[in-house]
Amino acid sequence: MDLTQIGKSAKEAEIILRTLETNKKNEALLVTADNLVKDTDKLLAANEKDMENGRANNMPQGLLDRLLLTKERIGQMAVGLRQVAALDDPIGEVLSMKKRPNGLEIGQKRVPLGVVGIIYEARPNVTADAFALCFKTGNAVILKGGSDALYSNIAIVESIRSSLLASGLPETAISLIEDTSRETTTQFMRMNEYVDVLIPRGGAGLIRAVVQNATVPVIETGTGNCHIYVDESADFEMALDIIFNAKTQRIGVCNACESLVVHENIVKKFTPLLAKRLKDKDVEIRGDESVMDAADGIVPASEEDWGTEYLDYIISVKTVADVEEAISHINRYNTGHSEAIITNSYENAEKFLDGVDAAAVYVNASTRFTDGFEFGFGAEIGISTQKLHARGPMGLLALTSTKYIIRGNGQIR
Amino acid sequence: MDLTQIGKSAKEAEIILRTLETNKKNEALLVTADNLVKDTDKLLAANEKDMENGRANNMPQGLLDRLLLTKERIGQMAVGLRQVAALDDPIGEVLSMKKRPNGLEIGQKRVPLGVVGIIYEARPNVTADAFALCFKTGNAVILKGGSDALYSNIAIVESIRSSLLASGLPETAISLIEDTSRETTTQFMRMNEYVDVLIPRGGAGLIRAVVQNATVPVIETGTGNCHIYVDESADFEMALDIIFNAKTQRIGVCNACESLVVHENIVKKFTPLLAKRLKDKDVEIRGDESVMDAADGIVPASEEDWGTEYLDYIISVKTVADVEEAISHINRYNTGHSEAIITNSYENAEKFLDGVDAAAVYVNASTRFTDGFEFGFGAEIGISTQKLHARGPMGLLALTSTKYIIRGNGQIR
Repeated sequence: MDLTQIGKSAKEAEIILRTLETNKKNEALLVTADNLVKDTDKLLAANEKDMENGRANNMPQGLLDRLLLTKERIGQMAVGLRQVAALDDPIGEVLSMKKRPNGLEIGQKRVPLGVVGIIYEARPNVTADAFALCFKTGNAVILKGGSDALYSNIAIVESIRSSLLASGLPETAISLIEDTSRETTTQFMRMNEYVDVLIPRGGAGLIRAVVQNATVPVIETGTGNCHIYVDESADFEMALDIIFNAKTQRIGVCNACESLVVHENIVKKFTPLLAKRLKDKDVEIRGDESVMDAADGIVPASEEDWGTEYLDYIISVKTVADVEEAISHINRYNTGHSEAIITNSYENAEKFLDGVDAAAVYVNASTRFTDGFEFGFGAEIGISTQKLHARGPMGLLALTSTKYIIRGNGQIR
Repeated sequence: MDLTQIGKSAKEAEIILRTLETNKKNEALLVTADNLVKDTDKLLAANEKDMENGRANNMPQGLLDRLLLTKERIGQMAVGLRQVAALDDPIGEVLSMKKRPNGLEIGQKRVPLGVVGIIYEARPNVTADAFALCFKTGNAVILKGGSDALYSNIAIVESIRSSLLASGLPETAISLIEDTSRETTTQFMRMNEYVDVLIPRGGAGLIRAVVQNATVPVIETGTGNCHIYVDESADFEMALDIIFNAKTQRIGVCNACESLVVHENIVKKFTPLLAKRLKDKDVEIRGDESVMDAADGIVPASEEDWGTEYLDYIISVKTVADVEEAISHINRYNTGHSEAIITNSYENAEKFLDGVDAAAVYVNASTRFTDGFEFGFGAEIGISTQKLHARGPMGLLALTSTKYIIRGNGQIR
């Protein structure tokens, strides 16, 4: 189908979704979950075609694994849909209705964004996940997945669409752009008439391309060059536990720790303990001179290291004179994602919370908690590293807007 | 100064503003207000140069009037600055701090956006106004005014900068891009490294150019093709008062009414009363056939009329069969600004509030109330017609973001 037609039909679906009862939305989500499981064989067959192409194109093992659907993974997709059905519906809530001196009552009502565009890479589970979150919040969704997952995505979208029809709802509440060419993708990013917001989900290159080319407003989900600052007054055991967790629990995620900042008064004593602890996972430590002097086996860090998101068993360590220098180092090299201080000083904790410019700033906890589920949202559409609209982990609320509703009895100006 | 240098120095100022005490911000705003008044002669002399150029270039009278500074207008600018000083500072408020099952306390702290870029046309009062709102919310501001007001803007910014220096604050909290060429403006719109948000203030052409060319996130302030729907059950006197007010109180503003929608069962009786009432201000009525049949002197409306923001003594009138048709007509032709229903029907009022997709939806009141001051914000940076980040009149809160702050005692995942 042509892109304009997809946009138009999504807008039409959105008009119905906008005022759809929560009960009906939840029922449709449960039907969709059941049918995805029933369609398991179809989904596996479609996915096998993508896998064959992937293998033929020498796709790396890591990507093949992300592309793969299994019976269990389809079951997890269904569980995800049921979890979203169980969440509270944010749509329709009226915030802060107040009476003005002239008698007008003015409040803000939570409403859907409209049509949400999602551009993502080769993870077919995003297809069902993104649909569930958008649908629950009354938005139509237009998906542009990667060409590597095309057959899988087509099969998932077909299954969801037949569930929508069976529930008496417009199937164009979800659309998939099957033409994955660069021209079509760019056209999609500029469809301001039909698309209210674009959310790119994927690597840094994809996100940069969307920010550079889109005229539709974008919610930038980003990379994470996350720091942990070990203050002079830190409890060393706590610091080591947190660093070990934030660096090694899962290395490929955006909230993993990539860089340490250590107070100069403790660097001598702390570095050997750090080196010992990180040895368990063979983490390479790249440090400045003070760090290298403090322990054996430290690799010299270059300027480039301070700005690098390794996503690997590597960590950089920088020495600073005080919390102020730690804050300005972090603000210079971070990506605005998650930053932590380990300290026992009230003053330094507050300075750090105030001064560090990031979506999530921690005292005495692992950066790995930056996540919609860990924050208690029950869902996550991504982690925003921009300051507009939504910052940090995004749950259902990030997919809503508000409108002012004003009740009068004849007021004029 | 070169654009990158302006961006860098704004970022440096923002670091200081980010954690500046409210008292210090307020004092600096009061000093700035006093000094603008003291600098009246300088400002008038600079403005006279712009006025001379404007007259030499045959600038229309309306624009010349907007460009003109007088002693009174400079006094009003100072009053505006003092009013902003008197407003509550939203920065630093912590929203919804909650304890998670693992003991982490997670809250959202209100923080500045960072560096705000404002692109506007030939109204020099915007210069002081935009500075005050951005400064109060801890943001640095980079202004790109129109070439027509360049001398005025330079003089105002110089005055503000010397007040900032006198207050011991970085003068680069405000910068003016003096090169008003298209290339520089486009470069400014793509300075994602230094600018956190762009707000265009001006006509439809300016806003479109910013949306099309910017890679920095934009808050779109927009045009208003505002409707009033006169329901079957409307009180005619109330309807006529509201329409007269919304159409004629000020014709050149975005919240003025441009189009009426009338229930077919009352069009015969209502139209003659409407024509009579609007005759007082010689408003031209452009109607469909039912409207033309109902009164003399109605001009036939074309399809184009339904989508036109006249900003003039002209109004279009469309007949509909019911509230549903009114809602879908309005959603098709509106610009997402302000829409009103005049009704006595509870059911139709609620349908209209729910179904109309706009920043502000009214029952039984004039669309002219869509305004930051009328809504009780004490200030206004513009009226957003987009759904992301801010929708409707924007006060100080629209110039803020949040960050998550998380207090732990050693939590790991």
